[in-house]
Amino acid sequence: MSWDKAAKYAEVYRKELFESVMPFWDEYSVDSEFGGYFTCLNREGEVFDTDKFVWLQCRQVWTYAMLYNRCEKREEWLEVANNGADFLALHGMDGEGNWYFALNREGMPLVQPYNIFSDCFAAMAFAQYGLACGSEKAIDIASKTYRNILRRKDRPKGKYTKAVDGTRDMKGMALPMILANLTLELEEVLSEDEVESTLDMCIDEVMGLFLDERKGILYENVGPDGSHVDCFDGRLINPGHGIESMWFMMDVAKRRGDKELIERAVQVVLNTLEYGWDEEYGGIFYFMDAEGRPPQQLEWDQKLWWVHLEALVGLIKGYNLTGRQECLDWFERVHEYAFGGFSDPKFGEWFGYLNRRGEVLMPLKGGKWKGCFHVPRGLYLCWREFENLGGEGE
Amino acid sequence: MSWDKAAKYAEVYRKELFESVMPFWDEYSVDSEFGGYFTCLNREGEVFDTDKFVWLQCRQVWTYAMLYNRCEKREEWLEVANNGADFLALHGMDGEGNWYFALNREGMPLVQPYNIFSDCFAAMAFAQYGLACGSEKAIDIASKTYRNILRRKDRPKGKYTKAVDGTRDMKGMALPMILANLTLELEEVLSEDEVESTLDMCIDEVMGLFLDERKGILYENVGPDGSHVDCFDGRLINPGHGIESMWFMMDVAKRRGDKELIERAVQVVLNTLEYGWDEEYGGIFYFMDAEGRPPQQLEWDQKLWWVHLEALVGLIKGYNLTGRQECLDWFERVHEYAFGGFSDPKFGEWFGYLNRRGEVLMPLKGGKWKGCFHVPRGLYLCWREFENLGGEGE
Repeated sequence: MSWDKAAKYAEVYRKELFESVMPFWDEYSVDSEFGGYFTCLNREGEVFDTDKFVWLQCRQVWTYAMLYNRCEKREEWLEVANNGADFLALHGMDGEGNWYFALNREGMPLVQPYNIFSDCFAAMAFAQYGLACGSEKAIDIASKTYRNILRRKDRPKGKYTKAVDGTRDMKGMALPMILANLTLELEEVLSEDEVESTLDMCIDEVMGLFLDERKGILYENVGPDGSHVDCFDGRLINPGHGIESMWFMMDVAKRRGDKELIERAVQVVLNTLEYGWDEEYGGIFYFMDAEGRPPQQLEWDQKLWWVHLEALVGLIKGYNLTGRQECLDWFERVHEYAFGGFSDPKFGEWFGYLNRRGEVLMPLKGGKWKGCFHVPRGLYLCWREFENLGGEGE
Repeated sequence: MSWDKAAKYAEVYRKELFESVMPFWDEYSVDSEFGGYFTCLNREGEVFDTDKFVWLQCRQVWTYAMLYNRCEKREEWLEVANNGADFLALHGMDGEGNWYFALNREGMPLVQPYNIFSDCFAAMAFAQYGLACGSEKAIDIASKTYRNILRRKDRPKGKYTKAVDGTRDMKGMALPMILANLTLELEEVLSEDEVESTLDMCIDEVMGLFLDERKGILYENVGPDGSHVDCFDGRLINPGHGIESMWFMMDVAKRRGDKELIERAVQVVLNTLEYGWDEEYGGIFYFMDAEGRPPQQLEWDQKLWWVHLEALVGLIKGYNLTGRQECLDWFERVHEYAFGGFSDPKFGEWFGYLNRRGEVLMPLKGGKWKGCFHVPRGLYLCWREFENLGGEGE
């Protein structure tokens, strides 16, 4: 890629991040009365629901703290992060340090801590926030939460587990995949041994158990030995997850100088795009069945914002690490689709949900699952990658 | 409606039931090796998953036993019912008589009894089956299960409840609605007092708490006093459920000779159709938000088979009970849509899931949630109603 072209892309991503996306969250999402954030925002930024979903509260703290740490020490970014971190530290956990799934506007718990990913995003948020403001309390919350996750990881839903033990034991990819990213995020909080041994486990599981060598893509759920299980969950392919996990692997591999892991991860990204791209209408499917049978998820053919951002990140990282032209070709294809369908120049931020044809299915900018996270993180990472390609980078 | 027209419709429904739908289940769904039924069947009837979901196993027992009891004493129908009932009696319950949610093909439990509707459909199945074959054991299972439901009804998810007590207590319509139908189904098994007092409770809750007088439609979830709660679940409108619950109310009202309840229930069916009909593409939406905000469910705009069958039943019962022309007009509109989009003359049975435009979204005839139930029940009930209208009825 020419320096010129890289610089143009860098500017597109920088501009989208700082002139369309972050201003939307700055303006509409901060709850200055009770703390925390509104995430249920319609196209124009109006709040349509005030519940506080812990995944999204944590992720927004992370985003603002990350920008403060990695981009520029803007006091107003730290203030927004602080607004969420204070609210979460006060209301987010039960007596044993497990993170609730949802709180009401005031911070009272609505949904029990049945979902370990609340804890993952809390650890991520407080580590980044602790780094930003130097708070020992924040670092302490991050490391306690991280250790609690490791303790709970073999039975993440605890008493809310509905699967009967012994009939059909399966493992999910989501947790080892997130742990790889989380461990890199918490690098400065953890001991080197802890970091390396957890990363080893994550690589072993993701690349060893969940990656299907024959298809060259990742399964969401497998038997304890990595075998395929012929049931809905066992046949499930989630292309967005598969691609996201591969750029986490690239980050780990880059850190370790593991070229072979880089090559494998990049190849899986390309395979997954070939597998998950909708040749008829464009975009990447949300869910697929590995055997081509009807998936369980009725929303299987929808096009989701985060899937496309993860693909952009995975492709540009892959290109930067390997120089493979296919990465760039696919990047440009996904870029056209994403900026054409999700971006909303009129009111800022991105739409979250398109139907199969690429039409807006829900005219919202945030909801129960979409907050201030994938769009800014993806745009930020792509911007940085293009700066590197343009020779002005980190 | 002229007798002629009624007779023509009766014939359409009878033919669809006995020449398209039941032959499909007769031929493809019986697991004669392990007992029970395959419900995950593709367009042509091939099994694409062998798990046994207890809702659907029970509902298929009910359908075959119901046809045997109400239609004709065909020995082969009783055999199919027996194939499921034996399997369920052997494998379906935990040690305390709670019904698992899912079993594997052989009958080993996969998913714990977290879902009280498994128990509801089990009680319905065993009552109808007991009536068919005169088995005391079946009647005993039905009545024990029914009493267990009443015992569990204020905390139906038991230890799997994720809502935190006290922050935002809400009630769901599904259970009182199903209990109305279930209690009529079990009439011959229960004492008259039990029947009447449970029906009173169901009418009070459905028409008192969940029916919104201003909008004239039902909310899925309300506060304990029937108040509206401004959150995703509290704003949820499920038009199919609303209409189904109204024909359950019509059945209760007819039995009691309660004309006022009949009038109210019929009016709510009409209101719900006005509210939930997709004026752009036709068909009834799956989920809506009472305030017109984005619903939580990504599949909100899809058109589901059962919703349209419940509407047909509600409308033709409403017409038969009140003679209101609007019922007939709406019936014909829904009939055209349903037979045009869901029915599959080529391979039998109905498709389950259309996208908003009415195109087939999943080319399946059965799955995790669609089995041998809504289509045959709906067709059967409409056929009988038209026979009554044509003067040849029950």
